[in-house]
Amino acid sequence: MTVRALFAATEGDWADYQVCMPAAFAAAGLDVDLSPGHAPGDVDYIVFAPNGPVKDFTPYAKAKAVLSLWAGVERIVGNATLTMPLCRMVDAGLTQAMVEWVVAQVMRHHLELDDQILRQDGIWRQKRPRMAQARPVTVLGLGALGAACVKALAALGFPVTGWSRTPKEVPGLVRSCSGPAGLADALRGAEIVVLLLPLTAETENLMNAERLALLAPGAVVLNPGRGPLIDDDALIAALDAGRVGHATLDVFRVEPLPSEHQFWAHPKVTVSPHVAAFTPPETASEVIAENIRRGEAGLPFLHLVDRKRGY
Amino acid sequence: MTVRALFAATEGDWADYQVCMPAAFAAAGLDVDLSPGHAPGDVDYIVFAPNGPVKDFTPYAKAKAVLSLWAGVERIVGNATLTMPLCRMVDAGLTQAMVEWVVAQVMRHHLELDDQILRQDGIWRQKRPRMAQARPVTVLGLGALGAACVKALAALGFPVTGWSRTPKEVPGLVRSCSGPAGLADALRGAEIVVLLLPLTAETENLMNAERLALLAPGAVVLNPGRGPLIDDDALIAALDAGRVGHATLDVFRVEPLPSEHQFWAHPKVTVSPHVAAFTPPETASEVIAENIRRGEAGLPFLHLVDRKRGY
Repeated sequence: MTVRALFAATEGDWADYQVCMPAAFAAAGLDVDLSPGHAPGDVDYIVFAPNGPVKDFTPYAKAKAVLSLWAGVERIVGNATLTMPLCRMVDAGLTQAMVEWVVAQVMRHHLELDDQILRQDGIWRQKRPRMAQARPVTVLGLGALGAACVKALAALGFPVTGWSRTPKEVPGLVRSCSGPAGLADALRGAEIVVLLLPLTAETENLMNAERLALLAPGAVVLNPGRGPLIDDDALIAALDAGRVGHATLDVFRVEPLPSEHQFWAHPKVTVSPHVAAFTPPETASEVIAENIRRGEAGLPFLHLVDRKRGY
Repeated sequence: MTVRALFAATEGDWADYQVCMPAAFAAAGLDVDLSPGHAPGDVDYIVFAPNGPVKDFTPYAKAKAVLSLWAGVERIVGNATLTMPLCRMVDAGLTQAMVEWVVAQVMRHHLELDDQILRQDGIWRQKRPRMAQARPVTVLGLGALGAACVKALAALGFPVTGWSRTPKEVPGLVRSCSGPAGLADALRGAEIVVLLLPLTAETENLMNAERLALLAPGAVVLNPGRGPLIDDDALIAALDAGRVGHATLDVFRVEPLPSEHQFWAHPKVTVSPHVAAFTPPETASEVIAENIRRGEAGLPFLHLVDRKRGY
């Protein structure tokens, strides 16, 4: 029997996914009619992005699950009309993209590449480079993305401290902290901090003035997670005072970041246009197909969101 | 009995090494009198750098070995007065520093960080990033440095091709090429090429016009090895014609690179002031101490240079 899946993301996404999804369904042995135009009452699964057309899930009475194309579900998890299971995207391609972005930015700041790139002035400034082993890095968030970044950074020689809401053992960490009490320990003295937390009521504005002050003087803040994890005004104040050395931000409260936003012009901020974890349609399609296969076979869904926890 | 070791490097090196070497000698159980001022006839070992004071080894009749502080020995290997064993520096600290530089530069070019760093103009240019697995990298030279870079780049997901003079099995390579016949295969289609060959008569000007033309259009050339591995005029011509996209060079025929050299002003060249593989005095001191220990115990030296081969 044909499964009807509604594609409820942007038109741009549809251009990619209408090519990739059929192959993934076929590989999973599924007969799926994927379309952006099904009648709500006919829909078995909703392939979803928050910037797509669906805001009210009430008409989708028969839908067995909402399958998010995004890793972050903070814009949908509190939707009262969403009564069916919600699965977030956890995808090897997305994880790999995140690792590449984080490693690139950590190495850029670690070896001060900006100085080299911006100052080709004929002056031979030979300075002994710092070694990774002398550069403490802290990763906040030890989910699939955080754990993969810890592994990659540890392999390059950085002493990596991790922090998560609940205690976690992650290979490669020199120190694993958890809970509200462990956060200050994780941040104190860090020279590079990487924000990979889900956005919840607890994590909003987590990087405030007080916590930024715990970092090593001149530390670098990397945010490929979610914009509201940072108190923007506190960050600007810390940068202007020289307490924080640089911030490279991939996510923002409003995206695209408006051209008049002070982040664009700030000499100590690099704006990256939300490219850190681009979900590759090829691998994401496989994750969606696997969850439809599971739903049809009566098996538990992968990456099911805990509504109370928020992710 | 006290071993007499001559420190024959620069005064700047002496400032570092007079602190680090005594600890390394003590750890190796050696009684060594290290000084820049021994009488030549008294010297048992020469701790050497080509930019130091010793050019003629004839007066050092009793010396059991010349222990280089540099990985590259091309400036000394052909010295006719050097009749004692010559050992080059192979050091874990130097290897680590090289891996950090290579990973940083590969990631910078792979994710086009320069565009981001140089163009914070308020325009949100969201472009799907290329994934490492789609970016072929070729490493020329599979010694200690090349092999360590291959491992790090492969771990990050790059398909890495290697090339060396003689066939070598290096973990992480998708393809290992060797000899004159294998060079074209290794270079063809590479999007990033990393030069980590020793400088010999055979490798001088190895990256000439013909070989640069084998790379993928717009490829990036990284040279942390030795300046003369590249035919500079051919590189400039390839950059100007757009066949090569960028060159990031850490080593040059003349160092410091003169301020009027065209590399400084060229928009497609980044000059890095020979910092890729800074030998950390702490770990290099241990390598020197271990070779003195071996010499005194009648054991074979580590990292002995093959004069005919040139490294």
